[in-house]
Amino acid sequence: MTTDFRSELLASGLLVDTGVDGLYLRSGKFERVVRGIDDLVSSAGADQNASVLHLPAVLPRVLLERSGYLRSFPDLLGSVSVFIGDDDLHAQLLERLGRGKNWVEMLTPSDVALCSAACHALYPLCSGRLPAGGRRFEVFGQCFRHEPSVDPARMQAFRMHEFVYLGDPDGAVAHRNLWLERSVDLLSVLGLTVDVVVANDPFFGRAGRLLARNQRSETLKCEIVCALHQDAQPTALASSNYHLDHFGIAFGIGSANGDVAHTACVGFGAERVTLALLHTHGLDPDAWPRKVKSRLWP
Amino acid sequence: MTTDFRSELLASGLLVDTGVDGLYLRSGKFERVVRGIDDLVSSAGADQNASVLHLPAVLPRVLLERSGYLRSFPDLLGSVSVFIGDDDLHAQLLERLGRGKNWVEMLTPSDVALCSAACHALYPLCSGRLPAGGRRFEVFGQCFRHEPSVDPARMQAFRMHEFVYLGDPDGAVAHRNLWLERSVDLLSVLGLTVDVVVANDPFFGRAGRLLARNQRSETLKCEIVCALHQDAQPTALASSNYHLDHFGIAFGIGSANGDVAHTACVGFGAERVTLALLHTHGLDPDAWPRKVKSRLWP
Repeated sequence: MTTDFRSELLASGLLVDTGVDGLYLRSGKFERVVRGIDDLVSSAGADQNASVLHLPAVLPRVLLERSGYLRSFPDLLGSVSVFIGDDDLHAQLLERLGRGKNWVEMLTPSDVALCSAACHALYPLCSGRLPAGGRRFEVFGQCFRHEPSVDPARMQAFRMHEFVYLGDPDGAVAHRNLWLERSVDLLSVLGLTVDVVVANDPFFGRAGRLLARNQRSETLKCEIVCALHQDAQPTALASSNYHLDHFGIAFGIGSANGDVAHTACVGFGAERVTLALLHTHGLDPDAWPRKVKSRLWP
Repeated sequence: MTTDFRSELLASGLLVDTGVDGLYLRSGKFERVVRGIDDLVSSAGADQNASVLHLPAVLPRVLLERSGYLRSFPDLLGSVSVFIGDDDLHAQLLERLGRGKNWVEMLTPSDVALCSAACHALYPLCSGRLPAGGRRFEVFGQCFRHEPSVDPARMQAFRMHEFVYLGDPDGAVAHRNLWLERSVDLLSVLGLTVDVVVANDPFFGRAGRLLARNQRSETLKCEIVCALHQDAQPTALASSNYHLDHFGIAFGIGSANGDVAHTACVGFGAERVTLALLHTHGLDPDAWPRKVKSRLWP
């Protein structure tokens, strides 16, 4: 996304700078678009008979360990520390603060962490054996990824709206394919010019390069992208993913026939779709094409 | 709130346990009530001509320092740590994880923290001199307070919907009083039996006791409470607060005439109002009195 577009977003008040890269306050106008997108995504999945869950902003820290996030994406996670102490320790903390020293070192790790991927919160609920036909969830997550950037399409704190399937391999592949098609339809109907590309997650380090290569060669991750930057890579607005048995093994989930469960998810980045709409149709949602408005706010 | 009520909430699937006290996933049914309350609160403030802002789940950590939160409520805050390192450090981290040792100690403090009170994010935007008549905001915040509890009315992660005024002392007192009245009306119309009590924030430690006493004796904080527990203190669903010049001094905010600005805010706890409604009218929102439903979902 060009610097110009960022400046326009800030000048228009759609987003408000907080002084930390990738962290914005969002205007009512921006949020009205987000709500419209969320409602549209929900109605696209109305036939899924999915259990709907909304996540809090923090989740049990142990999820980072069990999901493999700590192994594969350590550089993106955020863990929460808290103050546990008495008046004396508090006095020391304030003294450090007063001298401009690091007071955060005096905090204690808590048992909560920021959520990095919405679907991770669901898997512990499914340990054991799934019913015949598997299970489906619609999940709204508050996510955090530590990748400070001035690109508004790369926020540190953002929302992810997912449809998740847990069951057998055929069902998982079907879910991934169904939602790939639906995502393209849904975003195209909003007047966005999108493309589907085979992609990989940003696995960390040397070992990560191999994981990324495998993910690509097996076509496990497809992104629905939109060109928001002039000369750079297009931005992913959504992705449809087949996890094989990764989460089935990690969380002890079995399909109805007793095999390890396979899972798949589609995730929409609410802020990114909003930005794509603002970039494509202009900064005033009231002036967007009637066809787009009627989809977002029927 | 009684243990029975918590069990009922979990058994009904309205809330889903995460394994960490005070952290719940929320069902679509629960969220529909939250959305209804948010919309009702917004319409109650439609005459305020307020700038609407929605906060991300994390905010600049420096806010904890500037707002005085670190001084007054250190035990409630949450600061975010991240992994900054290479393959070698990552290998050490995974080795610790494998041996069941504390890996969080290897993280580095970041420049973001969880938000503890929604209005704090606004004050830095108002440094300098306010326009005549002051400024008004409507703010939706994701908040965190480190107070693990099995009482569902005391969540660690929750939402706060506020109307905030910045201006002169008369305006701040008027805002506090207006919203005290409106909050009582709004909650009563929903069929809740509420009461107004003079209250104090949970200031930390020895020095905190004096601050709490002063806050009470000057009637700076009023809570709108509802009896959800059988034999314990009633639960605050909302509070209306006059901060005097605390934030005006902390963030260098001047009123139009050049004096230090005074501020006031009203905050509604979306989850708590939802719980009060579920407690009062039953666990099935579809079966609530028509008058209540028509207010929430007109």
